[in-house]
Amino acid sequence: MIGRLIGVGTGPGDPELMTLKAVRALAAADVVAHFAKAGRAGNARRTAEGFLRPGVVELPLLYPVTTEAPWREAEYGAAIGGFFAEAADAVETHLRAGRTVAVLSEGDPLFYGSYMHLHVRLAPRWPAEVIPGITAMSGCWSQAGLPLVQGDDVLAVLPGTLPETELARRLADSAASVIMKVGRNLPVIRRALATAGKLGRAVYVERGTMERTVTTPLAAKADDLAPYFSLVLVPGWERRP
Amino acid sequence: MIGRLIGVGTGPGDPELMTLKAVRALAAADVVAHFAKAGRAGNARRTAEGFLRPGVVELPLLYPVTTEAPWREAEYGAAIGGFFAEAADAVETHLRAGRTVAVLSEGDPLFYGSYMHLHVRLAPRWPAEVIPGITAMSGCWSQAGLPLVQGDDVLAVLPGTLPETELARRLADSAASVIMKVGRNLPVIRRALATAGKLGRAVYVERGTMERTVTTPLAAKADDLAPYFSLVLVPGWERRP
Repeated sequence: MIGRLIGVGTGPGDPELMTLKAVRALAAADVVAHFAKAGRAGNARRTAEGFLRPGVVELPLLYPVTTEAPWREAEYGAAIGGFFAEAADAVETHLRAGRTVAVLSEGDPLFYGSYMHLHVRLAPRWPAEVIPGITAMSGCWSQAGLPLVQGDDVLAVLPGTLPETELARRLADSAASVIMKVGRNLPVIRRALATAGKLGRAVYVERGTMERTVTTPLAAKADDLAPYFSLVLVPGWERRP
Repeated sequence: MIGRLIGVGTGPGDPELMTLKAVRALAAADVVAHFAKAGRAGNARRTAEGFLRPGVVELPLLYPVTTEAPWREAEYGAAIGGFFAEAADAVETHLRAGRTVAVLSEGDPLFYGSYMHLHVRLAPRWPAEVIPGITAMSGCWSQAGLPLVQGDDVLAVLPGTLPETELARRLADSAASVIMKVGRNLPVIRRALATAGKLGRAVYVERGTMERTVTTPLAAKADDLAPYFSLVLVPGWERRP
């Protein structure tokens, strides 16, 4: 028995959007690890709820930082420096005991996911497999029925934390864009879209594929706080029939 | 009975990477439509093979253009102008008869997919649903175990058909990139990556998640013809631990 690490993408939130491969990996795993904030089940854990083996060993990995304040990667890295190393140690303890550890990851594990912090630490030493998941952005544009990119369109995936001028420049420079990390950056995002001449095309999606989801033209959405699970989509394919 | 259109993402190629929702939609569909070149089963059809109901009505939509020569959207649009309109008519005939028509789409239906041409024509008139799929790029970086984007990384999705200078500019301007439509553009892509100082980070993946798949540093791949199902990935997260 040799330990095995599996990053399992659970998709955007609707459990039906999990892959067959993810479901089978969960049915076979000895341990299921998941990132969460203290006191709340993480989103991936909630999505995968119905697919966990009764009695499976769970390993919650609790973020030490609970605020959703905007952060730059370097500051965040410093603030929770040791956390990912400790989480990797906790997972490795199970790997050393010969167990298969599935790490739940909302969306796709290697696309802005916390799982990546475990992967870079453990995959060099242990057999590792990554099961891709439907990204949040894919769930959102599908739910909105919004054709995103076609033909030779360039797509930019942009964090809403970018400075306004840089955001505007990149929006103007790309046929289509997805803006992640909307949160309290909505006023900045709105101004950047207006500068880029794209405000009229922008669509806001909140909690895509989950309960109480909202889809609306961004122009019709107030500048109040957007929740973490929200995105702005700017579709390309301008010459569509 | 009212007709219903469903765009079904079949994912990157491995049938296990289909979602539960896609599998259930195929089990319930009256008609399964799929794009293909004359004389060959399309990739989506091959992926979904094991999930089609025995005896289900199939509607192959055969592209009139069989060459894989590089094309600009406008030229291609002119060349096969009527095809998508005819395909939409063929689907609509079934919708009028009150049938549920599932249209297979490799990868994700609204991400560079042919399904989009049916969606924009039919969704304004018929109940339509889109089931997202794992994109080819997600299948490729997962198989390669390559952490793609983290934190505030900007991702650019770029067609390999772009002019070399534009490709180089965009590669240099983005933390991470995915280059689609590699095909015969590999020499241009390689030079653009070198100009942008990213050649050493680039990974080439051919037929990701399918049989006979290839993953290699781009620097170690010869400039011969790359098949249609190939991608170049340039990972971000440069400050990873």
